[in-house]
Amino acid sequence: TIDGDRLWRSLMDLAEIGAYDDERTGLRGVNRLALTDADAAGRRRVIAWMEQAGLAVRVDRMGNIYGRREGTDPTAAPVLTGSHIDSVATAGAFDGCLGVLGGIEVVRTLNDRGITTRRPIEVGVFTEEEGVRFGTDMLGSAVAAGRLTLEYAHGLTDRDGRTLGGELARTGFDGPADVRLAPPYAYVECHIEQGPVLAENGVEVGVVTGVQGISWQEITIHGRAAHAGTTPTHLRADAGLAAAQLTVHLRAMVDSGAYGDLRATVGHLVVHPDLTNIVPARAELTVDLRNPDDAQMARAEEALAAFLRDLEGSRPGLSSTTRRMAKTGYVPFDEGVQKVIAQAADDHGLAHVSLLSGAGHDAQEIAALCPTAMIFVRGEYDGISHNPREYSTPEACAHGVDVLATTLLRLADQ
Amino acid sequence: TIDGDRLWRSLMDLAEIGAYDDERTGLRGVNRLALTDADAAGRRRVIAWMEQAGLAVRVDRMGNIYGRREGTDPTAAPVLTGSHIDSVATAGAFDGCLGVLGGIEVVRTLNDRGITTRRPIEVGVFTEEEGVRFGTDMLGSAVAAGRLTLEYAHGLTDRDGRTLGGELARTGFDGPADVRLAPPYAYVECHIEQGPVLAENGVEVGVVTGVQGISWQEITIHGRAAHAGTTPTHLRADAGLAAAQLTVHLRAMVDSGAYGDLRATVGHLVVHPDLTNIVPARAELTVDLRNPDDAQMARAEEALAAFLRDLEGSRPGLSSTTRRMAKTGYVPFDEGVQKVIAQAADDHGLAHVSLLSGAGHDAQEIAALCPTAMIFVRGEYDGISHNPREYSTPEACAHGVDVLATTLLRLADQ
Ligand SMILES: NC(=O)NCCC(=O)O
Ligand SMILES: NC(=O)NCCC(=O)O
Repeated sequence: TIDGDRLWRSLMDLAEIGAYDDERTGLRGVNRLALTDADAAGRRRVIAWMEQAGLAVRVDRMGNIYGRREGTDPTAAPVLTGSHIDSVATAGAFDGCLGVLGGIEVVRTLNDRGITTRRPIEVGVFTEEEGVRFGTDMLGSAVAAGRLTLEYAHGLTDRDGRTLGGELARTGFDGPADVRLAPPYAYVECHIEQGPVLAENGVEVGVVTGVQGISWQEITIHGRAAHAGTTPTHLRADAGLAAAQLTVHLRAMVDSGAYGDLRATVGHLVVHPDLTNIVPARAELTVDLRNPDDAQMARAEEALAAFLRDLEGSRPGLSSTTRRMAKTGYVPFDEGVQKVIAQAADDHGLAHVSLLSGAGHDAQEIAALCPTAMIFVRGEYDGISHNPREYSTPEACAHGVDVLATTLLRLADQ
Repeated sequence: TIDGDRLWRSLMDLAEIGAYDDERTGLRGVNRLALTDADAAGRRRVIAWMEQAGLAVRVDRMGNIYGRREGTDPTAAPVLTGSHIDSVATAGAFDGCLGVLGGIEVVRTLNDRGITTRRPIEVGVFTEEEGVRFGTDMLGSAVAAGRLTLEYAHGLTDRDGRTLGGELARTGFDGPADVRLAPPYAYVECHIEQGPVLAENGVEVGVVTGVQGISWQEITIHGRAAHAGTTPTHLRADAGLAAAQLTVHLRAMVDSGAYGDLRATVGHLVVHPDLTNIVPARAELTVDLRNPDDAQMARAEEALAAFLRDLEGSRPGLSSTTRRMAKTGYVPFDEGVQKVIAQAADDHGLAHVSLLSGAGHDAQEIAALCPTAMIFVRGEYDGISHNPREYSTPEACAHGVDVLATTLLRLADQ
């Protein structure tokens, strides 16, 4: 078993980088958007810990960081673990960090016990997993796996127009290593569940069977600015109202049950000119759809497009444009790796359930390169995440990383 | 009759101060929010024109500007005309400016003809009529008329936290004159209609019978940030969805006809943290309600409050707070002044109709001090306003100011 206290101290230390105090709730949150100064400081801390643990560190052209512990067989492909340390703007201490710091904790434990594995073990830290700064999630791992190109990723811009390529250079994380990852032997990622399933089942650890599909689109609705006091209702082309109708319609689609197990979220919304007495001329919003069934997802996307077409027809002066931000289908994980994880949990005497991931993860990208699966750790408060309230107990974190350690050891000796 | 070309040149000159080019439409608009540098430059231009026309200029503690032309009777109360030159962020050249520059044009014409009136004539320029920077409309005239206090007005802040008092000082418009206006003999304001009624009636000039009630509220909905991918729909407290439901509900209230001639606009809306994969924790929006009937307005406000109460009951974790920004009831204008205006239009051979104003105007505040009415000038394109497309023809503007001139002359000789 790993050192749960040492793991917890690392988690709490890292959470101070980019920490903020939420006035309303009195909670302490984390705001460490990818490639900001806070993220860069967090990366330097992680690299320092990797080097203290004896790992050989390399940074690739996407800013992905890999720390390598050699095995006895120099020709064997490594077993990779890892996750990300970038966060959303209202985050907790665990999302992503548990996988990175858990990987480092496994290495520390192997060092303490003087254990050498046959295969090398590598710990990866992937860039912009959250996708909230540059608009595409799992970006670093998607480029490492070859699904997206380096040029696409470097050219993405944040809301202030700064490019990802420029921010890599500014923070000093435009590394020299080749971004295309040589296929590892296997990839295992430990992550908080970010949902209620493990708590509902009364277990601390989950074996993840795959990741549901994710569709992100940015929709801009164009209407016509007009005076709020004088413009008769029938003459309005209200872009803000249209955005509201779309938001309400998406929830109705979810509630109808007609699109399988659909989830829909409008997380970003701005109106222009955004003034009290002006009918909005423009609204920009994002639509985040999730579905475990690719066919149902396609139907939901088509229904959204149809709603937008109808909206244009409904009112002269309304039109819309749609930009694709991110799209991934359902990704099933490797059954063999799932079995190793389940066996490891059994060995530690930990009850476990198998479940599908609601969130996207770097594992779904690396799964294109090698057999992959994930270990989930239970969260408190219905597993709330992307919120300062996000919390997993020290015990649950330690148990998850115990299972990770045993799983990595087994795979690294295959 | 006044010099329509000279009036038009003044309108076009002033419109260059704060002008911007709208990429999308190719139109040139005006962005001259109250007490910005652009507004200050516009004020200096207007003061220069006033002084060229021989007016004695004073600035009061709200930054309201008055230019005075003496009459023959030094004890007679003046006839006041005027309006405002502050604009919304997506404005045209006419809203407010027509009344101020029209007033100056009347003075120029009297000067050209060597006409002296019995009563003084004053041209007023009121601060923050639009209410879009500091949140309360008709602010300068409301303080001049004694409905709102100087302390309240000076303490209002813009979105960057700058106070109105500070911005008055910064721009040099914290004048020494007493803000409480001594009751004029009468007040007449010429303004574009900003609506379709005159065009629908085939006339260029309207006699305004009053102003409908205005209710502005800022509503903040508190929900709970949560992960868009993992959070089951039934566990969400989505503040953005609640704001969308409120927006859609307001339109349904309007369409129901159950609240008389209600208009409702959500012009300002922001969500927090405003990120693709986070259920919004908070939404802040403004609700602008208009109603010519105070009892119907009260019912609409109560229905809005009830909707918010129901929203809180509907979902654990949702709550809301409401802040009153501005509120004025229906204001009827003086029938005597309306008759003088109608007679002046007849004298100029101009067909006219009587109509209620959909927009708020400084006239409704000054109406508390003295007999007041307004002259409306027809706008093109359904009278669209608060939009760069706002346009009245040079002829319509000149005709409106002709009527203003004759009206002011009649009143100033009473
Ligand atoms: N795990 C996680 O929060 N990933 C971010 C991508 C997503 O929104 O699912
Ligand atoms: N005339 C005008 O646009 N006034 C601003 C106040 C309002 O929104 O009615």
